[in-house]
Amino acid sequence: MNLLPVLEPVTDTSCCPRAGGAALGAHEAKQQALVFKALADPNRLRLLSIIKAAPTGSTCVCDLTEPLDLGQPTVSHHLKVLVEAGLLHREKRGTWAYFSLAPGALDRAASLLANL
Amino acid sequence: MNLLPVLEPVTDTSCCPRAGGAALGAHEAKQQALVFKALADPNRLRLLSIIKAAPTGSTCVCDLTEPLDLGQPTVSHHLKVLVEAGLLHREKRGTWAYFSLAPGALDRAASLLANL
Repeated sequence: MNLLPVLEPVTDTSCCPRAGGAALGAHEAKQQALVFKALADPNRLRLLSIIKAAPTGSTCVCDLTEPLDLGQPTVSHHLKVLVEAGLLHREKRGTWAYFSLAPGALDRAASLLANL
Repeated sequence: MNLLPVLEPVTDTSCCPRAGGAALGAHEAKQQALVFKALADPNRLRLLSIIKAAPTGSTCVCDLTEPLDLGQPTVSHHLKVLVEAGLLHREKRGTWAYFSLAPGALDRAASLLANL
C-alpha cells in the first residue's frame, strides 16, 4: 500500500474536482490523514531527516539504528510505515535494505496542507 | 499549550541552528510530531478545510457538527486538539465559540516538511 500515489489522482483536479470552496470530502480526508499519521511520530521524522541528509541520497538500514538508539526491529517497523505511506523508497542490495526519499513525496505531503 | 508557536524559536536558525546537514534532533522531532498528530485525523482535516473555506474566515462551532455528522462533544474535542497544536484560533462571541485558521499555521506546518 502506497498512500501518496493513491492520493495523487484524488487531488488531481483534472480527475475529481471539488466543488468551488467545498470542504475536503470524507474519502480524501481519510487518505490524507494516513500520510500525517505516518509523520506523527518523532522517530519517523528523524528517520526521514537522516535519510534526506544522506550524501548519496540513500541510507542502509544498518546505519539507522545507532543515531536513533533504537533496536533494528523498531527501526524496521517505522521504515515500513514510511514506505507504505509513500514517503520512502526501499531497495534491497545484497544483505541490506537501503532507503531513500520517494521523489517529491514531502512536497506532495506539504501541498496537502496548502490545498486543504 | 500551543505547539506551532513553540516550534518557531526551535526552527528559527537565528536561535538554534542545526549543524550543516545534521538530522532533526530528538526534541524538535517530538514537537513537530505533535503537530502532525493533530493533522492525523480525517475529521480534524475536514474541520480545518471547512473553517479555511468560510467566507468570513471564521466559523461558529454550531455550524461544524452537521457537515461532519458528529456530535458536538466530539467536534469540540477535535477543535481543542487543533487549537492546542496552534493550527486554529478560538474566539468566544456570546454563547458560541468561533474558530479561524491561526495565521500562517498551515504554511508553517508545511515548512516543517521542507526543512526536515
